[in-house]
Amino acid sequence: MVAMASDATNSRPALQSRVVLQQCLSARLMIQPASEGKEAEYIERGMVVYVCYLQGSAEEIISEIASSILNARLSETDTGRLVSILDLHGDILIIPQATLGGNLKCKGMQYHRNSDKEDGLKNCIISVLHCWKEQFKIRLQSAIKTSVKYGTYGNRLVFSMETNGQYTRYLEF
Amino acid sequence: MVAMASDATNSRPALQSRVVLQQCLSARLMIQPASEGKEAEYIERGMVVYVCYLQGSAEEIISEIASSILNARLSETDTGRLVSILDLHGDILIIPQATLGGNLKCKGMQYHRNSDKEDGLKNCIISVLHCWKEQFKIRLQSAIKTSVKYGTYGNRLVFSMETNGQYTRYLEF
Repeated sequence: MVAMASDATNSRPALQSRVVLQQCLSARLMIQPASEGKEAEYIERGMVVYVCYLQGSAEEIISEIASSILNARLSETDTGRLVSILDLHGDILIIPQATLGGNLKCKGMQYHRNSDKEDGLKNCIISVLHCWKEQFKIRLQSAIKTSVKYGTYGNRLVFSMETNGQYTRYLEF
Repeated sequence: MVAMASDATNSRPALQSRVVLQQCLSARLMIQPASEGKEAEYIERGMVVYVCYLQGSAEEIISEIASSILNARLSETDTGRLVSILDLHGDILIIPQATLGGNLKCKGMQYHRNSDKEDGLKNCIISVLHCWKEQFKIRLQSAIKTSVKYGTYGNRLVFSMETNGQYTRYLEF
């Protein structure tokens, strides 16, 4: 094994959340069974955000995640420039994804660090509220047309997606 | 912030690869421009594997990744049981994904740790070979029908996917 000399070991703060981002042209989520009166969510060009909160994740982290995904330059314009999802006026679909919190042990995934279901649900709702809040703050300055949709926690989420170039990103908080 | 007492800091070996896995009913990849005579890849029920190799990733890691994704119980049967992709007789689509290696710094992604393009390409080809080898080893014992497809490195990969329940997983090697 060829190790990276300066990075062979490092210490890091406790992981609070894992996030996977994918750019899309459209994405559709069917919620089974329907929950909170929701059966399906659909977004057009924008970003799919898979998020898993781990035990001990603080509300500040949720606000930081919302701010990062809204403001980071991860979305491609028609001319190939990278801009934020707000500047793209793209949509956002937040998918609670408990499986993201797992670690592979032997042949199975272990989820010892995941938030319990109630906390996970609460944090996902807070994420969406933070996205709206952040967006509303910016909307005062210009005509932002981003819409935020979200899946529910603990339901089966039947998902389909179209892209115009596959960009998957991973963030840790 | 509520820190996890026993896990507030830890040391870990140098990261060699990031992998994101998604279960699918079907997935289609259009390679633009066509490369190595390939224009598109299509899989039916199985697993999409997004993989990024970082600097210094060793061939043993590539073999370990191939073995993990083939043997871990991550695929759901019709009755809801989790089995390996080999036991499901599911397909595999490997998508080289350089963007997975980035770290968010201010508003942009930095890719200091990614393999260079040539190494990335070589490692992706080796991954596919390891999957085939592993599969072939097992095929001698039973009639495995998994097929392995893959995207190319450095091309635009126009992607679409259908699922019957969204399960995104993240693995580090």
